[in-house]
Amino acid sequence: MKRDIPKIGRSFPRSDAESKVRGEEKYAADYYGPDLLWAGVKRAGLPHGLIRKIDCSAAERVPGVVKVLTAADVPGANRHGIVHKDMPVLADDKARHAGDGVALVIAETKESLRLALECVSLDIQSLPGVFDPEAALASGAPLIHEGREQGNLLSTAVVQSGDGADGLDRCPVVVEGSFEVPMQAHAFLETENGIAWRTEGGEIVMIASTQAPFRDRLEIQHALGIPLDRIRMIAPYLGGGFGGKDGVTVQCLLALAALHSGGRPVKMHWDREESFLAGYKRHATKMYYALGADSDGSFRALRCRLYYDTGPYAHLGAEIMAMGLEHAAGPYRIPNIFCEGFCVYTNNPVAGAMRAFGVVQPAFGIERMVDLLAEKLSMDPLSLRLKNALKPGNTHGTGVPVHPSTGIVQCLETVEAHPLWKARKEWTKESPPFTKRGVGVAAVFHAMGYGRNVPDFATAKIELTREGGFRIYSGVSDMGQGNASTCVQIAGDILGQPAANFELIQPDTSRTLYSGSSAASRTTYTYGNALALACKDLRRRLYNRAALLLFLTQTKDLRMKPGKVLHAPSGREVPLSRLAGLMRDEEHTYIADYWAKTFEGEPVTGKGIPFGYPHLLFSYGAHLAYVEVDVLTGRVRVPSYLAVTDAGRVLNPQIYEQQVQGAVAQGLGYALLEELIAEDGKILTPDLRKYLIPGAMDVPDLLCVAVEVGGERSPLGMKGLGEIGSCGPLPAVANAVASALGVTLNRAPLSPQRILDAIERKEKANR
Amino acid sequence: MKRDIPKIGRSFPRSDAESKVRGEEKYAADYYGPDLLWAGVKRAGLPHGLIRKIDCSAAERVPGVVKVLTAADVPGANRHGIVHKDMPVLADDKARHAGDGVALVIAETKESLRLALECVSLDIQSLPGVFDPEAALASGAPLIHEGREQGNLLSTAVVQSGDGADGLDRCPVVVEGSFEVPMQAHAFLETENGIAWRTEGGEIVMIASTQAPFRDRLEIQHALGIPLDRIRMIAPYLGGGFGGKDGVTVQCLLALAALHSGGRPVKMHWDREESFLAGYKRHATKMYYALGADSDGSFRALRCRLYYDTGPYAHLGAEIMAMGLEHAAGPYRIPNIFCEGFCVYTNNPVAGAMRAFGVVQPAFGIERMVDLLAEKLSMDPLSLRLKNALKPGNTHGTGVPVHPSTGIVQCLETVEAHPLWKARKEWTKESPPFTKRGVGVAAVFHAMGYGRNVPDFATAKIELTREGGFRIYSGVSDMGQGNASTCVQIAGDILGQPAANFELIQPDTSRTLYSGSSAASRTTYTYGNALALACKDLRRRLYNRAALLLFLTQTKDLRMKPGKVLHAPSGREVPLSRLAGLMRDEEHTYIADYWAKTFEGEPVTGKGIPFGYPHLLFSYGAHLAYVEVDVLTGRVRVPSYLAVTDAGRVLNPQIYEQQVQGAVAQGLGYALLEELIAEDGKILTPDLRKYLIPGAMDVPDLLCVAVEVGGERSPLGMKGLGEIGSCGPLPAVANAVASALGVTLNRAPLSPQRILDAIERKEKANR
Repeated sequence: MKRDIPKIGRSFPRSDAESKVRGEEKYAADYYGPDLLWAGVKRAGLPHGLIRKIDCSAAERVPGVVKVLTAADVPGANRHGIVHKDMPVLADDKARHAGDGVALVIAETKESLRLALECVSLDIQSLPGVFDPEAALASGAPLIHEGREQGNLLSTAVVQSGDGADGLDRCPVVVEGSFEVPMQAHAFLETENGIAWRTEGGEIVMIASTQAPFRDRLEIQHALGIPLDRIRMIAPYLGGGFGGKDGVTVQCLLALAALHSGGRPVKMHWDREESFLAGYKRHATKMYYALGADSDGSFRALRCRLYYDTGPYAHLGAEIMAMGLEHAAGPYRIPNIFCEGFCVYTNNPVAGAMRAFGVVQPAFGIERMVDLLAEKLSMDPLSLRLKNALKPGNTHGTGVPVHPSTGIVQCLETVEAHPLWKARKEWTKESPPFTKRGVGVAAVFHAMGYGRNVPDFATAKIELTREGGFRIYSGVSDMGQGNASTCVQIAGDILGQPAANFELIQPDTSRTLYSGSSAASRTTYTYGNALALACKDLRRRLYNRAALLLFLTQTKDLRMKPGKVLHAPSGREVPLSRLAGLMRDEEHTYIADYWAKTFEGEPVTGKGIPFGYPHLLFSYGAHLAYVEVDVLTGRVRVPSYLAVTDAGRVLNPQIYEQQVQGAVAQGLGYALLEELIAEDGKILTPDLRKYLIPGAMDVPDLLCVAVEVGGERSPLGMKGLGEIGSCGPLPAVANAVASALGVTLNRAPLSPQRILDAIERKEKANR
Repeated sequence: MKRDIPKIGRSFPRSDAESKVRGEEKYAADYYGPDLLWAGVKRAGLPHGLIRKIDCSAAERVPGVVKVLTAADVPGANRHGIVHKDMPVLADDKARHAGDGVALVIAETKESLRLALECVSLDIQSLPGVFDPEAALASGAPLIHEGREQGNLLSTAVVQSGDGADGLDRCPVVVEGSFEVPMQAHAFLETENGIAWRTEGGEIVMIASTQAPFRDRLEIQHALGIPLDRIRMIAPYLGGGFGGKDGVTVQCLLALAALHSGGRPVKMHWDREESFLAGYKRHATKMYYALGADSDGSFRALRCRLYYDTGPYAHLGAEIMAMGLEHAAGPYRIPNIFCEGFCVYTNNPVAGAMRAFGVVQPAFGIERMVDLLAEKLSMDPLSLRLKNALKPGNTHGTGVPVHPSTGIVQCLETVEAHPLWKARKEWTKESPPFTKRGVGVAAVFHAMGYGRNVPDFATAKIELTREGGFRIYSGVSDMGQGNASTCVQIAGDILGQPAANFELIQPDTSRTLYSGSSAASRTTYTYGNALALACKDLRRRLYNRAALLLFLTQTKDLRMKPGKVLHAPSGREVPLSRLAGLMRDEEHTYIADYWAKTFEGEPVTGKGIPFGYPHLLFSYGAHLAYVEVDVLTGRVRVPSYLAVTDAGRVLNPQIYEQQVQGAVAQGLGYALLEELIAEDGKILTPDLRKYLIPGAMDVPDLLCVAVEVGGERSPLGMKGLGEIGSCGPLPAVANAVASALGVTLNRAPLSPQRILDAIERKEKANR
């Protein structure tokens, strides 16, 4: 088994599986150090208030306390943020949400730390808060950030094509609806944490659970004024990320602590409550939709308005909202659209990146609209989708040309041909007592990469070791999605080596090279393509050197074999260890760059969006959900689920399936269970007892089918897969429940209470 | 001037000119060291003999003598040789030529060394010698190497195509002739020398005047048993090489001395007499030709027999003879050929590589044959050549397909159109008293590269320095031909930097990478193409990094400018020093390989030749010589000379012209003056007082015209230039003299005595 050569396109056991199962793989949380100190944050505790005084004297007297620091001790700008730098390391003037940090304590033990945090005494004058994005835009709303011309509006944008909203006036059929989705927590197994220390040479070294170690350095540099070359970030495997570790969490705090720990390592590890309180969330969003069509069902016009609640800090809110706008029209041809988006500051917890970055929300809106239209026209919802689905040669609803690799039609046709689809009517007819069955579909799409005007770039490095093995230097974190293993697979295929012949170096700003963040479904695409180039370069060099040793004048008959290069016609071979011994150190390594393809030129729509709009490459999916609703309890069960996905070439069917299954499971959680509730800024679901995520028993056997549409001409031929699967469950389940009950459901999750309320509303209306 | 960006294709002042003129550039001969010791060789002094005793005791007693070593002290195989390892470092059993080294003396001063060498007492029993290659093949000839089945025959080969020699029988016109050319000395300014020491770590470091530093290590390893990784060779600019520094000269001797010098540097520098005695020579060659044609002048058949005298050791004799065979039929279509070659051991000085490696000799033979045929058919010799010249689509006389880059027709047509050709009849008519004027042409060709079955490979390295400049690591020596400067030009063009922004590291086995030898007209082609690839790779990386800094998503609008990268549309720029600071050390360097194209597949002719036959790429030339013969003194003057050359794309017209002029000057020397005479193995022309080379006054203004024939599809588009110019002068001058005097001249050089003899022979015949 260990001698098997991985092949791109075939299943290959994850190279990290065994070490993780054995507990040998170290996550950031597993790192301790000699003379370890612990750091923790005192948080504001109220959603909006003027900080008048922070009294640390009692805390400083707690035995074992090394240092208590406040904003006054932050040596740099005391602000971070990926695009908009508006989030303080430690709040200075104001607290803007309950999780704002106000003091940092360093202590010898966790117990001293806990006591000292309790002893930090805060004098914060409460201010009126605002907790709804539309309310925050109203005149007279409390201002989260003073002095901004735009008030609480972080950003607004419009995507307009054709005649825009006027198109609706000429549509014989129009449906309308408003939708609302809540905050979602990433709920990773490994909460935010890290460990940091200052070396004798003055370098800050940090091991953290992070999706963007290279960018973290820039954030620390800005917030604390530490020069970039004095910061080393190391990112081991993550116990989950999902976007929640894209912006900095513990990083600036730990760097600050390391400046005051006398060279001792300092560890910070948020527990679940702190993670829910202070970590990032999926944006709660309110949406207003109107979709118009011809009487034959051809989509003609779309109008929508999206309000994203970013909490008190920007994180990537403006970009997430723009991404939502780009996807608001779904994977359809719609000649006239007018979509407006608003990203708004409130005193809710901070929202940020989460899997399917702003797209999950409008996928719910547009896909419900399509089902409502199908109902109104008495059309089959799948046929209606197929009729309007994008094909190469079309333009997106946004007016942007469709890439040749667009496979939504093939996805929908695959659903149509699937036994689950064919059996749907039989199945729904046979509902057990007090149960209603329904079937729903959703067509979704998701962009890959950072989008227009954002450099989307990776640098891969591969090294032949002295012993004749290989070392891969990964520039992008593996959050658990399996990109590290896919690196081994790519390199193994190209270099003809079994997985055991590779060592994989996880991101480390001192050892691996800048490759952007582990985000935007870009990781395997951008880094993987760079790695493929580097491996081909190194293979060419190994062939060249072997040819010299074998006194050959060409390399075409050479083949990579485990541990050696073989000259096929003669059977002569050169061990890689021998080549390694003869090659100079500098020849052992190849470094290759890869630019992800981006949309070039000016888009004719959405002109005001500076970054990330539009994208060039999208993955597509068609999801089919079977649901059973218990009409007595309101509980929704999903006994069968089919996810058909076009993400280009499948590199590893096993990981492909795992990615889709994981995303669907998380999407089913958002559809049915997950809702981070904050009432007046106070979180009512502070931990996993109250914030429910699906367990193994809640998730059906998920059927995953890949549609490998060609047209993506990168070395690997694949597209992004990490996020597309999240977009389908909420609309597919909502459509299924709506068809089962004949009700309209505009709010996620479809909790038992909401189901019962809907049934009651319907019954009242029927009375 | 210093800010000028070199451009490929334009003249560019040699980057090494100023430092050489100022005396700042250090040749190997310029290196001395602290506590320097001197080493020298006691030589056999007689051409063939059994070594009975070497008495070093008197020498060891000379004050200042550190060590006297003999063959018994050589720790390895005590043999070297590029292909055939038959040449001793210090002779053990026999002396095979007068220059064989028998003892190595190390002394504190040159004077002690001289005295001690005189004191080494030799008891060598003289053996009968053999000094002519044909005599050496006769049965009963003294054997140079005992126990060889082939006796004195080093190698023999046949190139046969069509009906072979039988083709002559069916030719209406046949001409025959036999030719003889002597040994030629390389006569470089800087004779063979080097300096070596052993480091504390046990490494042997050597700075030597060498064309093949990487191969030297293999020779030292074999001869002395020193591991490869304990030998470091450094090759500064050479004061001339011409092939004479391709095999090892002082290297093994110096490495041996360094083993016994207690870590002190040891220097060895052959003076001119030692260089003539012990250095390599161009092979003296005897040739027998018959050329048959149709009555319209179409060449039909060729028979030739070539005898190369390799002296007592092989060096590259077998390969040189094979190269001669490949060129024996000239740049013509000849459907039937039979060419036999013999490379033979004698007790003459050792022959080896010299500019135009075995080709100068048959160029004399075949080109005289063509003129004899023209005379017999009363045809114009240029028209006859044009009629038979090779064109793409033909096969060579050897039966091998002609490459698309073949430009001999264009060369000949350029001569035909030249004013010198048009004025030739007027000019010859106006001979002054006692003077005969004549005009001769020659069509020549010369292969580039190592040829079939020999890996012909270079690895170039380019580095961005911390300061934003560049460092080129050259793997191939610069003998003075200007390839180092051309490297700066290539890199300067691609990287957009003036010459002042480059540092060029000369070959050093610890710093630069294996790139083969500086030989075979391959240096700029093979290394230069590798360098072009490396520079393009590095430029791409710099563009990528600059794009990231400038937040661009593509690099197409970036341009290299002196010291910076410019974004043309916006005018924004990134200094290279800033990029260098941001890039990690390992990213500063690019290493690229290049394989010279070689003939692939089995040739249908010359099958028995294991290496180097046939070649794929050839350069071509058509030379025109005006001569004036003083019939009273026999002195030949060359007042005008035209060399038209097809060597593909001209990278630098100035160096191009210098290379052709230098080669023609050396060729004129061989035509008129140069003859290393050894009588019974004793050199009668031991120094430059008796061995004459052309001075500046002997060389006319040489007209050089380039014909840039396309078809060579390497990155640089050029072909080899270093040797082709040497091939034309002897046949062109001989043809001119023959036409001036109406005599036949079969022996080079055309010395005054030989001219007078020829005139006398003709007068006798006319009486």
